[in-house]
Amino acid sequence: MKTNRIIVIGGSAAGPKAASKARRMDENAEITIFQKASDLSMASCGYPYYIGGFFDDRNQLLCSPAGVVRDSRFFWNAKKITTKVLTEVTVIDKKNKRIEFRDLQTGERGTAEYDKLVIASGASARKPPVPGIDLDGVTTLQSLSDADYLRKVRDEGIIKKAVVIGGGLIGIETVEALNLAGIEITLIELLPQLLTFLDKHLARLVEKYVQTKANVILQNGVAAFLGENGKLNAVKLQDGTEIPCDLAVVAIGVTPNNRLAKDAGLKIGNTGGIVVNEFMQTSDPDIYAVGDCVEIPNLITDLPVHAPYGDLANLQGRIVGENLISGNVAKFPGTIQTGICKVFDYGVGATGLSEQNALQLGYTNIETVVNASLDKPGFMHGNLLITKLVVDIATGLILGAQVIGPGDVSKQVAIWAMAIKGHLTVDDMATADLPYAPPYSLAIDHSIATAHIMQNKLKGYFTGISAEQLKEKIKEKAPMVLLDVRNPDEFEQMRMGVGEKLIPLGQLRKRLEEMPQDKNTEIITWCKISLRGYEAALILQANGYTNVKVLEGGIVAWPWVREK
Amino acid sequence: MKTNRIIVIGGSAAGPKAASKARRMDENAEITIFQKASDLSMASCGYPYYIGGFFDDRNQLLCSPAGVVRDSRFFWNAKKITTKVLTEVTVIDKKNKRIEFRDLQTGERGTAEYDKLVIASGASARKPPVPGIDLDGVTTLQSLSDADYLRKVRDEGIIKKAVVIGGGLIGIETVEALNLAGIEITLIELLPQLLTFLDKHLARLVEKYVQTKANVILQNGVAAFLGENGKLNAVKLQDGTEIPCDLAVVAIGVTPNNRLAKDAGLKIGNTGGIVVNEFMQTSDPDIYAVGDCVEIPNLITDLPVHAPYGDLANLQGRIVGENLISGNVAKFPGTIQTGICKVFDYGVGATGLSEQNALQLGYTNIETVVNASLDKPGFMHGNLLITKLVVDIATGLILGAQVIGPGDVSKQVAIWAMAIKGHLTVDDMATADLPYAPPYSLAIDHSIATAHIMQNKLKGYFTGISAEQLKEKIKEKAPMVLLDVRNPDEFEQMRMGVGEKLIPLGQLRKRLEEMPQDKNTEIITWCKISLRGYEAALILQANGYTNVKVLEGGIVAWPWVREK
Repeated sequence: MKTNRIIVIGGSAAGPKAASKARRMDENAEITIFQKASDLSMASCGYPYYIGGFFDDRNQLLCSPAGVVRDSRFFWNAKKITTKVLTEVTVIDKKNKRIEFRDLQTGERGTAEYDKLVIASGASARKPPVPGIDLDGVTTLQSLSDADYLRKVRDEGIIKKAVVIGGGLIGIETVEALNLAGIEITLIELLPQLLTFLDKHLARLVEKYVQTKANVILQNGVAAFLGENGKLNAVKLQDGTEIPCDLAVVAIGVTPNNRLAKDAGLKIGNTGGIVVNEFMQTSDPDIYAVGDCVEIPNLITDLPVHAPYGDLANLQGRIVGENLISGNVAKFPGTIQTGICKVFDYGVGATGLSEQNALQLGYTNIETVVNASLDKPGFMHGNLLITKLVVDIATGLILGAQVIGPGDVSKQVAIWAMAIKGHLTVDDMATADLPYAPPYSLAIDHSIATAHIMQNKLKGYFTGISAEQLKEKIKEKAPMVLLDVRNPDEFEQMRMGVGEKLIPLGQLRKRLEEMPQDKNTEIITWCKISLRGYEAALILQANGYTNVKVLEGGIVAWPWVREK
Repeated sequence: MKTNRIIVIGGSAAGPKAASKARRMDENAEITIFQKASDLSMASCGYPYYIGGFFDDRNQLLCSPAGVVRDSRFFWNAKKITTKVLTEVTVIDKKNKRIEFRDLQTGERGTAEYDKLVIASGASARKPPVPGIDLDGVTTLQSLSDADYLRKVRDEGIIKKAVVIGGGLIGIETVEALNLAGIEITLIELLPQLLTFLDKHLARLVEKYVQTKANVILQNGVAAFLGENGKLNAVKLQDGTEIPCDLAVVAIGVTPNNRLAKDAGLKIGNTGGIVVNEFMQTSDPDIYAVGDCVEIPNLITDLPVHAPYGDLANLQGRIVGENLISGNVAKFPGTIQTGICKVFDYGVGATGLSEQNALQLGYTNIETVVNASLDKPGFMHGNLLITKLVVDIATGLILGAQVIGPGDVSKQVAIWAMAIKGHLTVDDMATADLPYAPPYSLAIDHSIATAHIMQNKLKGYFTGISAEQLKEKIKEKAPMVLLDVRNPDEFEQMRMGVGEKLIPLGQLRKRLEEMPQDKNTEIITWCKISLRGYEAALILQANGYTNVKVLEGGIVAWPWVREK
């Protein structure tokens, strides 16, 4: 039997996974990984936590679960995989099924032949094309050497001020890491909101929280990095502001490393990712591609997306490892772009489509709802969760969910991701059978309660108004009655202070005469989370009021400054 | 319009939920709740945590999220619902659509007419028919007065020894609560295992852990409660053992309170639960029943089950509230019997069918797998999870999952419950898109890794052996080679010590000559979690060994005493 020669370009996540799975499928294949960097199998998603001091042993980023560093020796001994580190593949010669490479230390060049090739070339951090980008003190957070640099910043404790450019996942994680290193941070985002996978309302709530840890500047970009003697000393923004700092971390997204594939004539998609089929095979059947360098279908929209997530890279690697050996037997269907990040004591996650996203893609017949509640009972010290759910009205199918807050966001996002995977509707979710005990959840889980509110809205039991819409109405001084239905002591402790009247729910039926005579007057009701606000709206509607709306998510989801 | 008269029998969970939802659906309905106990809307699942001192304010068991006690005044003011507490309904006269009731304080009797009736009569704790059951010091943990009694035990601190009878959810939660009260506990279970919703292997792992907190005695029941002057001083077991104690908590399950329904001629199922259709309607169309007094279909087997879970009671209550007003518009499909409980630092949960359960029900074509891993990376201080997955071989459908350990069990069980709800297969789960970031999960989530192992098993890539099977083989002194493939330092720290040979995975290919000449020799491989054990098995198989098995779950899932 002819030996199967497999070459893998890229040794970070998807590459080694594909190689290892291929080895498990075929003890005799000849498997070689070419890696441009010096390290292998780096847990790159862990960099922010290394920088932030969640752990101090750098080896933990490179170790197998058993504590062995995954170096070339490990790959050979444990997996019989040859690894060539600090070696760059320069050409894919697909006609001759051969690659050309260059040893980055010696400069020596060579070629190697393959039967099957895997491209796992990853993605590179984008950099703004502005002056000063090469100054000392300007960095990205993409490679292990970036992480080493930023960890050194922490350990030395000299740098006091930093600017983080980009309010996406990595930017936000960087803010936390540098804050924990005692550094004063300004976060710059070009767009009008942080974390664009969130809708504005939830992004604004996250921003409000991040503001307690860093100075956040939106709708402003970097115009130049300023410095002296080659060293950064300020960031100049597009509006002219100069922010003194000794460190700037650029986190404005990543671009698929597609050059090798492009040069080889492989098909590249509009996202810049290498085009692959469901077997993760490129336009050349002997070449597979995986991880951050490919584009894959969004399973809801069927449109190709660039989804550089570490978990997907690993899943794709396993699929390719199997297909390399057994022919195309395993399929990777695509992504629903599930993601999560930690922001200090907040979790921020999403799966599927946001409302903004859905509207942009032409989904017009959608409904959304915002739900706020604890994750478990108050007596078990529950924490707040705020969820925004997006559904298709015609089918009731779940299109997406965003969840934020100090509560158990991870479980909530997992539940919604599974709901989308299972093509579940709001009605399905309304009777889901989830694990309940007070240490873990409310009797009606937050996710199920969210589905209940959506059912109520879809059935027309209530009309919601979003925090943004209300803010707009207040600004316009629209004629309306604002009604907080909590108890007076709750009102004393915390209130929006936007001109609202207080009538506790328990008194509303007796105090209806305090409501306007004109039954068509717009009335907006709320409470802490708008559960009582909803009950108040029902009472008003039953008494003939025709224009009652419930402030979705209540006071805790109000993303602007409150009076109290 | 004629006013809709609704009577609800039972004021704990499902009853108030049905009444409140009915009110929200119809401001004018006349709604009355009859409640035998003195309290309403008790968070009964919270009793163990009140007893154990997780919180001290008893009102928290009775409060709305806004901190208002849900008493009769609250129900009237906030919900316009009449509540008659300490009032027992004695007869349902379905012909005349009337109930008879008795005031438990005054003895006064009365009748009330209904248009629609809801039975939410709950369940009662079973008691063993043995002498001494009425002694002071013998209690159940079902009612709020039981909880008050046990909390008093904690607060007084006089009682030092207790016996808990029954190793189910409530029994186990009681063990934790009393242990936290500083009481020495013996837990008695009649069956050969704790927590019968778990398969033996996992139940044994839980038992091993509970043994560190309480003395656990299996396969033994209570023969008598012994006492002097009406006060308990010992529990006598069926084997004659006497265990001195001042407190005994009986937690051997609950029975649906079906007497009223039975007397009224409503259909009762074999489980003892009231029979209802998908609208939660009894055999009388004007009478609905909800909560712990009904039986509902198991969605996997289609067989009726008695599933007394607080979350289901609430979901059913909401369904009934809507149907009471709008006719039968809302459906409750059934349960997959998802449950979870906290056992000190362990979570223990399950959804769907266990292997034992499935086999008993005649599912013969099933496969199972045990997976052990951390819930998140070691560098983020991940904790252990052990999952047993049960699938249907023909379809690949997930039938059930059991998850235990100090890791994030709740999220795992929720994921599997959603997988079952969505009729997902192992292949679907193998490419699930779950939220990944190091603070929350491994790059390949524990649930997805479990699906991967199951895929590998179903494809015949490896043969597993369960801990129980291996234990049996060791006892029988079966001829075999036991192979631990970890590193020597790991072996020094922890090992099974059952005659195993140590060859680190990285050396196995070079040390194959140490393996038996006879390629048909049975070889059992493992490591800490059996990932490397699996790789070792593949190497051996590739080298001609025909009878290699992997110890599922590895050393951490070994439920018996280890040498180290």
